[in-house]
Amino acid sequence: MDIKKESLLLHEKLLGKIAISEKIDITFKNLALLYTPGVSYPCLSIAENPNDVYKYTWKANSIAVISDGSRVLGLGDIGPLASIPLLEGKALIFKKFGNVDAVSLPISQLTVDETVKLIKNIQYSFGGINLEDISTPRCFDILDRLIEELDIPVWHDDQQGTATIIVAALFNAFELAGKDIKNSKIVLFGAGAANSSVFRLLEYAGVNQKQILVFDANGILGVHRKDLENIRVLYDICKKTNKDGKNISIEEGIKGADVIVALSKSGPGVIKEEWIKSMNEKSIVFACANPVPEIFPDDAKKAGAYITATGRSDFPNQVNNALVFPGMFRGALDVRSKKISWGMALNVAKAIADFAKKKGIHKDYIVPRIDEIGLHEVVAKAAKDTAILEGLARLA
Amino acid sequence: MDIKKESLLLHEKLLGKIAISEKIDITFKNLALLYTPGVSYPCLSIAENPNDVYKYTWKANSIAVISDGSRVLGLGDIGPLASIPLLEGKALIFKKFGNVDAVSLPISQLTVDETVKLIKNIQYSFGGINLEDISTPRCFDILDRLIEELDIPVWHDDQQGTATIIVAALFNAFELAGKDIKNSKIVLFGAGAANSSVFRLLEYAGVNQKQILVFDANGILGVHRKDLENIRVLYDICKKTNKDGKNISIEEGIKGADVIVALSKSGPGVIKEEWIKSMNEKSIVFACANPVPEIFPDDAKKAGAYITATGRSDFPNQVNNALVFPGMFRGALDVRSKKISWGMALNVAKAIADFAKKKGIHKDYIVPRIDEIGLHEVVAKAAKDTAILEGLARLA
Repeated sequence: MDIKKESLLLHEKLLGKIAISEKIDITFKNLALLYTPGVSYPCLSIAENPNDVYKYTWKANSIAVISDGSRVLGLGDIGPLASIPLLEGKALIFKKFGNVDAVSLPISQLTVDETVKLIKNIQYSFGGINLEDISTPRCFDILDRLIEELDIPVWHDDQQGTATIIVAALFNAFELAGKDIKNSKIVLFGAGAANSSVFRLLEYAGVNQKQILVFDANGILGVHRKDLENIRVLYDICKKTNKDGKNISIEEGIKGADVIVALSKSGPGVIKEEWIKSMNEKSIVFACANPVPEIFPDDAKKAGAYITATGRSDFPNQVNNALVFPGMFRGALDVRSKKISWGMALNVAKAIADFAKKKGIHKDYIVPRIDEIGLHEVVAKAAKDTAILEGLARLA
Repeated sequence: MDIKKESLLLHEKLLGKIAISEKIDITFKNLALLYTPGVSYPCLSIAENPNDVYKYTWKANSIAVISDGSRVLGLGDIGPLASIPLLEGKALIFKKFGNVDAVSLPISQLTVDETVKLIKNIQYSFGGINLEDISTPRCFDILDRLIEELDIPVWHDDQQGTATIIVAALFNAFELAGKDIKNSKIVLFGAGAANSSVFRLLEYAGVNQKQILVFDANGILGVHRKDLENIRVLYDICKKTNKDGKNISIEEGIKGADVIVALSKSGPGVIKEEWIKSMNEKSIVFACANPVPEIFPDDAKKAGAYITATGRSDFPNQVNNALVFPGMFRGALDVRSKKISWGMALNVAKAIADFAKKKGIHKDYIVPRIDEIGLHEVVAKAAKDTAILEGLARLA
């Protein structure tokens, strides 16, 4: 049976991947405690002391997985309704690997302002917000404003989640290549939610901005890019990586590079073998478009790549956000962190890299698999410890 | 231990009454079907055919329990955060008695317009909406507009839910009193969400508007009530029940009445024994304020009441919405009804009355208890059959 048929059949059989379950059996007796009249006491208690919401409700362990369906997977703008299977899949992974109660919550496609307002108006019962598959450039300001304006962790998995696992994989790839990431030439190919966040996380990790060149479909990012002037996050990258506005081609830019991280358009041959051939020795090639990587690992290796990674589970070195988000939220919720910071993302990336190193990394194993025992606990611990260290935790 | 202490302890132990559960165990193998890349197929299928959302997601069985906390129980405006324990209690009952996956979803306090817009913007993953504890008069237009503008069932439990169980109880009370509800004098005391809806349901049931007198804290409803002119639902009652604007007192109005349904302010002595004494013989007295009824059943009986009912579980004849809402949504979801109509409410009321009659009604048993076996199935069947009959069902 092919994967399409198999997936549709399984989804039809399940009729939803998650359900609500009862944490206690209702009897006629305890009904008076859990519902009227007894329930009025925790209600009143929260009215008097809002923090009691963490003591008496599921807020302590629940998050919303929110998308407007404006850019779902590689499928594009399929709308909120059609995003539900993905959101439920995410909720399932949250529960399985992080024991987080995640509710799939698709919303209408609105302006940045309206989206921020909407999410603020429905955040009460959630201890965190996981944004998902929102189109650029809206997702940049939606995320940054929500982080600023809410006092619960807000995370856009396509931004920070992807960045975290990419950087984890880069740490081990550089280790194997015997190179120092801080003395390397880095090319980011694609400048969407994912790679702009890879840039921000590398920057946070202390990689010099001048080591990084960023390309999108219209060429290299730089101050000459008038089309990006109004996209804060991207123009910031323009200024930092190419303040002279040198308009060089990818063919020129990739020469001598130590790594290319491609998070761009799906399709074979988006990255040319010639480009790989012109890279530095022991080159690292992450081609993460789904379902079809920008260059297949075998082709990249033929062209001289030393280490490859993709987003797919049927090739070695799958860089998969699902290694990150269940543990990240587990840790954040455990200490009631106000935010998920870049510091938490960096330390989680390091923890994931270390986890794999302890098992023994090699060219086909630079990141763990999602189902490795103890992985998510390690992620949660790194998130938690960093939140405490940075003063973000309300519990310690 | 007192109920306050016991309730707080139980809530603290539970840390939320509901949780998310996995309908399937994730393995590395089925991850490719339930998440990327396989999940793209149900996503695409829904994008092409929106109705497939009922085939591949939990929408078929899930609802949102929404409140802005503007009028919670007898506690008043305690805000959205403090409403969560109640909403979770409701979700628990939905699951236990209706097998409905209900998510507690408190929202900000907004205007009618903004509330309607907000709910429309977050409705995608829900097969129905249960509104809860929204203050009057906002709740009237919020409900009626959402019923009009959404194609999934929308129900405000404090309006239709209370009305349904009150009318069910009235049917059996009149049966026992040997009176015909259509030839009786009916006094509604309190003109909030609940009694205005009792009026609408009685009207739908064919009770003549001239039989009904309605009182609120400012006296009898009638066209003279300038304070109600801008509240559509209430002024409609003014016009229908007292088009001459006769300004009579409750003492005058209740004389010779066969029934008083009080859904007003909690507190002892809100209804006077003298009033009851002036009613017709075999009078029916529903005093449903919580936690303290407007008159205690014993006092009402001393004053001559033949049958009494309250909202409390520690007196006979508890009129409790929880007898209605789990089965009502179960039935509506089962046939994918577009709405919950007054016809469905009336037939459910009849079905609940019949259920009790089959068990043998008497003065202390006019409605079933929430945990009676088979009750919720009977409610679901009445809801379902009526939806089909009225052409509201998308499945049959």
